[in-house]
Amino acid sequence: MGEKQDCSKTAGKPIRCRAAVARKSMEPLVIEEVIVAPPKAYEVRIKVLCTSLCYSDITFWKRNEPGFYPVILGHESVGVVESVGDGVDEFKEGDIVIPQWMAECKECETCTSNKTNICSKFPFSISTFSCRDETSRFTDLNGQTLNHFLYVSSFSEYTVVDIVHLTKLDFSIPPNKACLLSCGVSTGVGAAWRAADVESGSTVAIFGLGVIGFAVAEGSRLRGAKRIIGVDLNPEKFELGKKYGITDFIDVRKCKNKSVSEIINEMTDGGADYCFECAGSTDVMQDAFNSCRRGWGKTIVLGVEKPNQKLSLDSLVILHSGKTLIGSLFGGSKPKTDIPILAQSYMNKELQLDGFITHEMKLEDINKAFELLIQGKCLRCVMWMD
Amino acid sequence: MGEKQDCSKTAGKPIRCRAAVARKSMEPLVIEEVIVAPPKAYEVRIKVLCTSLCYSDITFWKRNEPGFYPVILGHESVGVVESVGDGVDEFKEGDIVIPQWMAECKECETCTSNKTNICSKFPFSISTFSCRDETSRFTDLNGQTLNHFLYVSSFSEYTVVDIVHLTKLDFSIPPNKACLLSCGVSTGVGAAWRAADVESGSTVAIFGLGVIGFAVAEGSRLRGAKRIIGVDLNPEKFELGKKYGITDFIDVRKCKNKSVSEIINEMTDGGADYCFECAGSTDVMQDAFNSCRRGWGKTIVLGVEKPNQKLSLDSLVILHSGKTLIGSLFGGSKPKTDIPILAQSYMNKELQLDGFITHEMKLEDINKAFELLIQGKCLRCVMWMD
Ligand SMILES: [Zn+2]
Ligand SMILES: [Zn+2]
Ligand SMILES: [Zn+2]
Ligand SMILES: [Zn+2]
Repeated sequence: MGEKQDCSKTAGKPIRCRAAVARKSMEPLVIEEVIVAPPKAYEVRIKVLCTSLCYSDITFWKRNEPGFYPVILGHESVGVVESVGDGVDEFKEGDIVIPQWMAECKECETCTSNKTNICSKFPFSISTFSCRDETSRFTDLNGQTLNHFLYVSSFSEYTVVDIVHLTKLDFSIPPNKACLLSCGVSTGVGAAWRAADVESGSTVAIFGLGVIGFAVAEGSRLRGAKRIIGVDLNPEKFELGKKYGITDFIDVRKCKNKSVSEIINEMTDGGADYCFECAGSTDVMQDAFNSCRRGWGKTIVLGVEKPNQKLSLDSLVILHSGKTLIGSLFGGSKPKTDIPILAQSYMNKELQLDGFITHEMKLEDINKAFELLIQGKCLRCVMWMD
Repeated sequence: MGEKQDCSKTAGKPIRCRAAVARKSMEPLVIEEVIVAPPKAYEVRIKVLCTSLCYSDITFWKRNEPGFYPVILGHESVGVVESVGDGVDEFKEGDIVIPQWMAECKECETCTSNKTNICSKFPFSISTFSCRDETSRFTDLNGQTLNHFLYVSSFSEYTVVDIVHLTKLDFSIPPNKACLLSCGVSTGVGAAWRAADVESGSTVAIFGLGVIGFAVAEGSRLRGAKRIIGVDLNPEKFELGKKYGITDFIDVRKCKNKSVSEIINEMTDGGADYCFECAGSTDVMQDAFNSCRRGWGKTIVLGVEKPNQKLSLDSLVILHSGKTLIGSLFGGSKPKTDIPILAQSYMNKELQLDGFITHEMKLEDINKAFELLIQGKCLRCVMWMD
């Protein structure tokens, strides 16, 4: 990783390469040749080294939003810069980069503040998946436009990404570990670190133990939490989670006479200091809010619910509890600032990443990766391009 | 204020004195003689100097909760210690004290932390209005028990209050100003100062301009907020509010084509930094949440809604906005710690209190005070006992 390559032959010209194209909701992706146009202003064309499958790819693949298909999915990856468009000073050919769906322009009033990670110049919008000029760089061999996804589209040997969605890595972190930092792991670790600012010695409850939930545990463990309670439907998650610091487990299916929040209130003598909702369910958000400590309890919402679902909280409980509810995108982390810190933490053998990779395969086997994740049989499946 | 009185004649004995007794919901209070028992352990009997009427007195007087009547209402007051019960070292005869419904035991894990103002040993409960042993110190001349209200019951010449609900004042602040610090004003100023921690130069929106709303403005003004937007149905509130730093006004009745939150988002180019809900309405809580800035906007709920009203928030908006929702009781202030600071601030001519007192009268005229506040014709009506 990191060796220079001669891109003088391809710069400024369209590149023909392989990609996994999603043509219809719920149908297997098709490995086919596509054309990737050169980067326009403030864009970078990247040779993808490897990409991992995140549950959000599946969530959108299952939904059948009008105008979404055909699309190149994928938003966790690492790559090498092949060429850059006009006005790009931050990146050059040969740089190792992580594309990420979360923008950081480093210039706007919010990017220059330390109070939020939400760029006000390029705010995240679930309806916009394209480049800054709202056009696509992908076409198939019949000339049909293929849509981008989450500003990244990494299920392709080459992709084009806006510079605000790109972080340079200076470390010799292996690509299969690096790509994990572009979404789920950074969201979870960041939530403990940035959004919640977990204090040493505190008690944490995590609702939903997938990659984000385990990453919250890992972030809380690194912050010195003394007790980390995992809540899930699958008790196998407890064994897996112990290495990330999970000390207690609540099996939701076994909660008959008492609710999860009653159990947590009893276990912790009044509620957890921090509750993280990683399941994407308004019901679970309510459980989390009810499980956090009166006075200073913080509930951090990380899970992605279906659109138009309402979280309903009793207004007098809000008033009397003194509890705080925090919405957090990307765990409150600023990508260009925080991803390199997490990469360094991994290289220092502090942050654990290896256990998140349960499978590795070639891009050709991507439909197998979809199956594994849908069946809950993997955490992260890394797909290599070569 | 502050002169010693000879209480040796009354200590340890019941005191017969005047009180305004509420015998039925929505019916005028009755000035009658009552018997106030001596204080039990950890209690203090107080000679009330003056008391002011807060909207919460009216809210509970309107509700007809089972077992609530007959009751001695009143929870904003200042008084002199007449005698103390067993185990009371903190107060002695002749001390000037402010009773307050918010407890601070100074010993429990939350009182000794700086993360919350909610005492975990004596948590606020809307269903418990009595002393620590859950009995009453009041009887009428027929021997019928009269209930306490909000731990204070200040519509009486004498009352008995638990030490965790009592703050000693060392300052020579006039009683009619001091009594304002026991509820509404401290809640509003505290919300800007403690719960929201308003930063200098920031933008604030206040929904509902009563005493609490104006006190939020005053606290924000003292914190150096550069823009304070008042939202109310009554444009006269704008003139009144200017002295507390309100710079802009939105007349809710004139919002036809645009919602309040759309107007605030436009006025502030993306939302206010802090939104304070002082109206006690879940609809207004939603407006406030929608009016605060994406990224770092904080919505602070101060208003008391009817029981069982639900605040409904879109879960994806919570997630994507990075906004924070904070419930705050007593504005996040610790009474024994913060009331003396606010009293000192008034004596230093920083905190403005005089304008909150729109009427002064005798306890005998209390039903007139009820009328004035119900009709929105006063801010605070102070009633003197002598
Ligand atoms: Zn993802
Ligand atoms: Zn920005
Ligand atoms: Zn009050
Ligand atoms: Zn306490």
